[in-house]
Amino acid sequence: MKHKLFLLTKTNVSYRQLLSSCQLPQLHLLDDDPINIQKADIWLAEPDLAAPILSHAYNLKWLQSTFAGIDPLVKPKLRKDYKLTNIRGIFGPLMSEYLFGYLLAHSRQHQKYKQQQQQKIWQPSSFKSLQDQTLLLLGTGSIAQHIAKTAKHFGMQVVGINRSAKPAQGFNSIDTLSHLNQYIPHADTIASILPNTTDTQNILNEETLALMKPNAILFNLGRGNVLDLDALFKQLSQHQEQQAILDVFNQEPLPKAHPIWSLNNVTITPHIAAPSFPEQVVEIFVQNYSRWINSKTLLHQIDFEKGY
Amino acid sequence: MKHKLFLLTKTNVSYRQLLSSCQLPQLHLLDDDPINIQKADIWLAEPDLAAPILSHAYNLKWLQSTFAGIDPLVKPKLRKDYKLTNIRGIFGPLMSEYLFGYLLAHSRQHQKYKQQQQQKIWQPSSFKSLQDQTLLLLGTGSIAQHIAKTAKHFGMQVVGINRSAKPAQGFNSIDTLSHLNQYIPHADTIASILPNTTDTQNILNEETLALMKPNAILFNLGRGNVLDLDALFKQLSQHQEQQAILDVFNQEPLPKAHPIWSLNNVTITPHIAAPSFPEQVVEIFVQNYSRWINSKTLLHQIDFEKGY
Repeated sequence: MKHKLFLLTKTNVSYRQLLSSCQLPQLHLLDDDPINIQKADIWLAEPDLAAPILSHAYNLKWLQSTFAGIDPLVKPKLRKDYKLTNIRGIFGPLMSEYLFGYLLAHSRQHQKYKQQQQQKIWQPSSFKSLQDQTLLLLGTGSIAQHIAKTAKHFGMQVVGINRSAKPAQGFNSIDTLSHLNQYIPHADTIASILPNTTDTQNILNEETLALMKPNAILFNLGRGNVLDLDALFKQLSQHQEQQAILDVFNQEPLPKAHPIWSLNNVTITPHIAAPSFPEQVVEIFVQNYSRWINSKTLLHQIDFEKGY
Repeated sequence: MKHKLFLLTKTNVSYRQLLSSCQLPQLHLLDDDPINIQKADIWLAEPDLAAPILSHAYNLKWLQSTFAGIDPLVKPKLRKDYKLTNIRGIFGPLMSEYLFGYLLAHSRQHQKYKQQQQQKIWQPSSFKSLQDQTLLLLGTGSIAQHIAKTAKHFGMQVVGINRSAKPAQGFNSIDTLSHLNQYIPHADTIASILPNTTDTQNILNEETLALMKPNAILFNLGRGNVLDLDALFKQLSQHQEQQAILDVFNQEPLPKAHPIWSLNNVTITPHIAAPSFPEQVVEIFVQNYSRWINSKTLLHQIDFEKGY
């Protein structure tokens, strides 16, 4: 066997089973013995598990991340002498399920009707359809494009924000991050799908959050660093009609001591919006492995400079 | 003025305002004085309010229903000597919001994460994406077609059922009502958008409900008569993993005494899936009025024989 693959995920058993059934040519699937860290030339790994032991991976040539987010592997002091690829294209549908699930649950008043049912009360309320509402998406990559498509299907207007107003499909308009403050006051729903980069640090802060519509809904689905959580706590404590739906945090798990856990107008979920399903990750790995052994450019390769 | 319009809705004030601003030619908008019941040649009315006084409407030529459901006006003993039109085309998006709101809230475990948040527990769970799940739609009309399109966007397989397996757009396959029992065991989600006709009476009964998958979700969004509510209560009492989301009932409001109010795996909403928004109803009325004064065929005309 020419190539040796090391697995480093929380679900190695699933991955081993799936990969075995693929019978990939010239690939030896190593067992989980730590000695194999030194032997493997290919890794299929979760970035946070891989980062601390990267310096022992003497033979590493290519690491396929099982996640989209690869922040732990692009920190300044880590090695950058191997190919790093991540997972893309499979998260859009899952993110859309998450976002529109919570958006519709809020706009169609699930909580209110649940309470009424408990009291056997039959009382229709008026509501606003998503049609003609405005969604502001921070990020315009493949995930954001899928969300934009879902939003259009529901009749929404979609504004996209990225670093340089680079055009992307499926948005009514696109502008740069530096103009963000012009758009926040007009958005019914704001959702960040931005990666963790220095440009995006705390762009949702006390000042920007104060510009939100009185009944705006804010989603953070990308990375925690985009949002100043303490500023959000302050903003939402004082504005009960505003809502936040948060799936990502600077510190995960979110510490129990953080007061935002207890706000009625905040929904906290444990980073579950778009998990990596092993079946889908393996599909991408198989494609990339075929490219690797045929010396073709890998899919979804990370630029260590840019950090994404 | 050649034509006289009488309003009979729970929101006459909104309708009067909207219609006044349209300045329709040759149309006198009568006030709500009951004497005008006899004078009007055109009605814009809710079917259940109009039915009891229809016999006094000596000059009625055309009644535009503000609802999609016109059952109260097609009962055997009522007059059928006028044109009856209903509202179509505006309910698909609203029904999709309702259905996918509740479907995603269930599949993405909103209740579980809400409870975990209350206890500050960070605990991801596995879940099944809507992708590749099967939706069985009873009804293939314009509302069902819109729901099918939404389901396809979320990656679902969609089977449609209608009276005669008449082709319709956007379904993976279509079959007749008489083959319903073949499809129920394969459906992850079943949704009825059927109108109230004799053919559809209790088609979801003890026998058919027993065929559902162990974790199936059933929606009733069309008319109450499709579903044997007592049979559903029995079925869901014994199958906690199955869910029902019910928006329509034979008797509305649903009587407080009905035990189904209290089942944990049943969601009851007060006929709010797709309300008639006056703005959208007036848009249709304006189109139809223009056809009426120009002696053109009206849109969405009811066939009293068929009852829809």
